[in-house]
Amino acid sequence: MNTILTVSDYLIQQLYDHGVRHIFGVPGDYALSLFHKLHCSSLQIVNTCDEQGAGFAADAYARIKGMGVVCITYCVGGLKVANTTAQAFAEKSPVVVISGAPGTNERLRSPLLHHKVHDFDTQLKVYEQLTVASTVIDNPQTACREIDRVLNTAMRYKRPVYIELPRDMISVPVSPGYLPQRAPEPSNINALNEALREAKAIINAAKKPVIIAGIELHRFGLQDDLLQLIENTRIPVASTLLSKSVISEHHPRYLGVYGGAIGREDVMKYVESSDCLILLGTFMTDINLGIFTAHLDQGRSIYVTSEKISIRYHTYEDIHMEDFIRGLLKMNICCREVTDIPHPPPLQPIHPVSGKGITVQYLYQRLNSFIDKNTVVIADIGDAMFSAIDMTIHSKTEFLSPAYYASLGFAVPASLGVQMANSELRPLVLVGDGAFQMSGMELSTIARFHLNPIIVVLNNLGYGTERSMLDGPFNDVHLWKYSRIPEILGMGKGFDISTEDQLEEVLQAVHEYTEGFCILDVHLDPEDRSLAMRRMTSVLGKRVKSKPDK
Amino acid sequence: MNTILTVSDYLIQQLYDHGVRHIFGVPGDYALSLFHKLHCSSLQIVNTCDEQGAGFAADAYARIKGMGVVCITYCVGGLKVANTTAQAFAEKSPVVVISGAPGTNERLRSPLLHHKVHDFDTQLKVYEQLTVASTVIDNPQTACREIDRVLNTAMRYKRPVYIELPRDMISVPVSPGYLPQRAPEPSNINALNEALREAKAIINAAKKPVIIAGIELHRFGLQDDLLQLIENTRIPVASTLLSKSVISEHHPRYLGVYGGAIGREDVMKYVESSDCLILLGTFMTDINLGIFTAHLDQGRSIYVTSEKISIRYHTYEDIHMEDFIRGLLKMNICCREVTDIPHPPPLQPIHPVSGKGITVQYLYQRLNSFIDKNTVVIADIGDAMFSAIDMTIHSKTEFLSPAYYASLGFAVPASLGVQMANSELRPLVLVGDGAFQMSGMELSTIARFHLNPIIVVLNNLGYGTERSMLDGPFNDVHLWKYSRIPEILGMGKGFDISTEDQLEEVLQAVHEYTEGFCILDVHLDPEDRSLAMRRMTSVLGKRVKSKPDK
Repeated sequence: MNTILTVSDYLIQQLYDHGVRHIFGVPGDYALSLFHKLHCSSLQIVNTCDEQGAGFAADAYARIKGMGVVCITYCVGGLKVANTTAQAFAEKSPVVVISGAPGTNERLRSPLLHHKVHDFDTQLKVYEQLTVASTVIDNPQTACREIDRVLNTAMRYKRPVYIELPRDMISVPVSPGYLPQRAPEPSNINALNEALREAKAIINAAKKPVIIAGIELHRFGLQDDLLQLIENTRIPVASTLLSKSVISEHHPRYLGVYGGAIGREDVMKYVESSDCLILLGTFMTDINLGIFTAHLDQGRSIYVTSEKISIRYHTYEDIHMEDFIRGLLKMNICCREVTDIPHPPPLQPIHPVSGKGITVQYLYQRLNSFIDKNTVVIADIGDAMFSAIDMTIHSKTEFLSPAYYASLGFAVPASLGVQMANSELRPLVLVGDGAFQMSGMELSTIARFHLNPIIVVLNNLGYGTERSMLDGPFNDVHLWKYSRIPEILGMGKGFDISTEDQLEEVLQAVHEYTEGFCILDVHLDPEDRSLAMRRMTSVLGKRVKSKPDK
Repeated sequence: MNTILTVSDYLIQQLYDHGVRHIFGVPGDYALSLFHKLHCSSLQIVNTCDEQGAGFAADAYARIKGMGVVCITYCVGGLKVANTTAQAFAEKSPVVVISGAPGTNERLRSPLLHHKVHDFDTQLKVYEQLTVASTVIDNPQTACREIDRVLNTAMRYKRPVYIELPRDMISVPVSPGYLPQRAPEPSNINALNEALREAKAIINAAKKPVIIAGIELHRFGLQDDLLQLIENTRIPVASTLLSKSVISEHHPRYLGVYGGAIGREDVMKYVESSDCLILLGTFMTDINLGIFTAHLDQGRSIYVTSEKISIRYHTYEDIHMEDFIRGLLKMNICCREVTDIPHPPPLQPIHPVSGKGITVQYLYQRLNSFIDKNTVVIADIGDAMFSAIDMTIHSKTEFLSPAYYASLGFAVPASLGVQMANSELRPLVLVGDGAFQMSGMELSTIARFHLNPIIVVLNNLGYGTERSMLDGPFNDVHLWKYSRIPEILGMGKGFDISTEDQLEEVLQAVHEYTEGFCILDVHLDPEDRSLAMRRMTSVLGKRVKSKPDK
């Protein structure tokens, strides 16, 4: 009887088959009946306070689960996640944006329906700039094919896509007998073989090869292949800031985070003296490259990404990154003995001094020994992120940060996405006060769903990163009593921390309290900042001064 | 010595000359040196918690002052105000979006600079969809002309514009001796005269003409001209929901809000039986038209907007609305005696009953007698807005609501914009709990600048408007203790209200406390809603059901 498949049934089934179990969003009348369908499905709706929170949560969810979904209403919802979608695009996170929309039957003669901006296709045109594929489902005959095309493109490029669903299409039956299409275009086998042969020859001829493991290894599920490659060849490996934790930072072949002047000096020296740089899924961004203080020689590089493969100065197209990396495993790359490689320094023993004011450096050192294998560290932008460079992330631990696109306000809603994606993980969120004020009240959603992240607010009364570059009252942030937010939300526990011994007490309490979120208001000196940030802002600051070029 | 004018000097001077005194925004490194320039100028920077708040505040500021400015950094800031800019576009509010950006000298060879999405022009392409004019200031020779072109277009259409300022252009000198260009294209005088003659003949021949005064009269500063026209002709006048308060609701010729089934029935009957509808700057939107329950006969209409003028079924172009309306004043339209027109009902006497639970209807009746000539009523979307239809706004009072674009979360940040635009006004903000959770923490900015709006949270535990259409747990909102937010922010006063007598006490206290903001948590029955909303949602609800058309 009930075997007629509708557009929304098909869409929901495909999302499920891609591993999606939760949908982040805020309803609105154009999306209301879709929310009703989702509610009746095997997916769970996670309502956020604001669409921005849903967008960031879906991005974080996608980074853990492989696909994330944000579902919102037309324009007033959709345009609120333009920025979060842009971040997902820039940092390769496969987020599916599903927007309710006026029905196709309501669009005739272009009336001024509420939420309309310029024309009915305004939102579509905006999303064409921010996604790798977009569609308006306005024809039941092609609906399934369109949904497949768009979702497959998200998976191929690990980037966001846009699906607009006019509300009169939600319950329309699709063509019967359609079978989902998943098979991507295969790699060009000739190009693949030539590239593999060339890479093997270069690596085997090299004296000091180094792998720089990038974020795409994580996005494409190639972390085990990376481990196998290191196992086979014993080549040392560095990560970037964006890809930190792509390999356990306790791995014996792991050097540390490479990032020009931002990273450790011994890592920089080792990497830059290599005669064969194997860049696997690495983003050559300004932040990853320490604002271009990094010096990587293209003439010594094998640079593999999901979009192209470059060896020295020539390029191969139409090769899937996973085919190349798995191909390398079979290529008989020689195994070598390498000794005396740099390593992240071992944990420093901590000796808290009663009454001694807390510093950024102390805080991070202490947190470094607090985290365990079930912690996921989520760092917002600013010193929250820069300081984290020197934290040592355990095996199977995750480190998440928008270290390229660098949108403030990611971390708190991201912790929502992460815990929905994997309830075993307890997020440790590092967030500046400026970033917290943008989206931190998504703690409300965290409370609603009884999650238990630990939120560490780096309270230094302003935008600390900017203070170092060019200061003024525009860098000040109003003081909130962050530790009292649990009283507003009727859930969670808040703590104030000014001294080293207070931090000890609080970490003990946080460890024991797992029924709800904890928020730690860490009172820092506004002038205090990490060494990594000092290096970073001294370079960035020079670019802020707006002297014209001659 | 110091007479060299730079690009930023020129831009700041033009904004000042357009009446701008405040800039809303959040800094970021690409915009940092511009913030420094603004800080040293005669404009005041108003830092918000999140860019969304700055966008809404600038929109509200523009509605009061004639131009508003939001200044943000590249992409991570700019794309966060896509939605607020879309609202300004849809509802004709001249907001200037100024975005910092990577320097022209940094863009060579397209490096992966932080905050970049797809390409350096991604943000520009997005804003081309959301504004009436956009520019990237990349040439000092044409910078002044470009700034003029864009600002003049904002004023011509009362819609947002986009100016992208690469950071290496901020301090570049402009061409010396340039004079600002302000003169717009004049109206086509032949078209104007023909249209005026035709309009006069139709109006004078009519038995029962009615003016529907729209929002553009407010945007183009034509409210005094409207009063003069009514004075000359004694034609009765209605407003729309979006334009409510465009004329004092105590004016003897004022009928009330016309909006099909949403407005009062006597207004609907009077307007729809008119033989000559004079629509001045009216938006024919679905909400203004009571979701198309309004019945306006085009064959009896003179429809004047800033973009075109239609008389019955034909159209005139190239006529400025202000020329047409001021022309009408000189056209010798006959003055007529009209009696027995509908009026907003007089204020009902209030008799609070001790211990009696508060209802939406009672709340609004009581607030109706609380507001005075220095109150500006700002209504967010939902019953906050629908209930306000029947409030009587005093002479010189303002009523602001995004009654067409309908983006939730406008009202709290709007109150920030309004009080910066006119410190004499005390905003009364009506906001649902769902909308408050989106942007209400901009109370932080309100506290920081020592403003004193009165925030009334309609706490009904969810999205009430949607509940009436199609309910589910996705319409629930987590309970906050709104009245305790002042404790987080270290400023303001909070109150809880459940009964009629509590409301009396609180309004007295609010009236006396003017040093900071007040937040009133009004506990409503989740099933309670205004009569206007019941009518509205019964129509909207039918459209939510996603039955396909045959």
